[in-house]
Amino acid sequence: MKYGKVYFEEVQVGDEIPRLAKGPIQQIQLTRYAGASGDFNPIHQDDEFARVAGMGGVFAHGMLSMGFVAQALTDWAGAGTVRKLGVRFTGLVRLKDVITCRGRVLAKSSKDDVHLVDLEVWAENQRGDKVVTGKATVTLPARE
Amino acid sequence: MKYGKVYFEEVQVGDEIPRLAKGPIQQIQLTRYAGASGDFNPIHQDDEFARVAGMGGVFAHGMLSMGFVAQALTDWAGAGTVRKLGVRFTGLVRLKDVITCRGRVLAKSSKDDVHLVDLEVWAENQRGDKVVTGKATVTLPARE
Repeated sequence: MKYGKVYFEEVQVGDEIPRLAKGPIQQIQLTRYAGASGDFNPIHQDDEFARVAGMGGVFAHGMLSMGFVAQALTDWAGAGTVRKLGVRFTGLVRLKDVITCRGRVLAKSSKDDVHLVDLEVWAENQRGDKVVTGKATVTLPARE
Repeated sequence: MKYGKVYFEEVQVGDEIPRLAKGPIQQIQLTRYAGASGDFNPIHQDDEFARVAGMGGVFAHGMLSMGFVAQALTDWAGAGTVRKLGVRFTGLVRLKDVITCRGRVLAKSSKDDVHLVDLEVWAENQRGDKVVTGKATVTLPARE
């Protein structure tokens, strides 16, 4: 049994995947992320530290936003289906921000029994500013 | 004040960044990651579910490994310095695995006041199998 939520044949170029909204970002989430990842950099925890460091206050780990994008993909395609993920960090995520993760199918290809879907992906805040942009490739099962 | 741990001039092509070892991966860490990210897919939590789904048991969120790679970068260069990160997921991470994150400088470039360093990055398990491979770009401050 193949774990997956969508079949290759069901996907069309131009399709948008379901949007995933996350937030508002709260300090406790950044603290939980530190506990999960082991990345306890105070710049994500201590507002005064982050101000002195010139960052204008606490901001979220970039990988948390990237993780949200990945979750939008796996909620759609299933866990373990993401082959490649590349992003550019284009804006800082602050406390109280609401991040919406989106994706759109760019291309489909098959080689032997491997069926790949390329997508553009991005995450935007409540003002519509993109905080993460990138591309992803997922592998999908084909109907048989 | 610019937050950073290393100056552009100190970095040479071919340099390896400090290795970051993580693990052994325990179930509680995957559960914490679920709590932090909001990704509660049972395939990362419930071994029987993951077996029935054909994945041979629980495996770590890919983004957790990618987050480890990002942390190796930010431990070295400072939080908020990663401009781009792109990876390929080349192997599953299982419970008890120890993941070592590594990186090596591929190129340096400057344009106006922005100083960029390109790196190859990867994460390998205790058997030396690469579970994540990719490239990253960080921005570093220059001495004045």
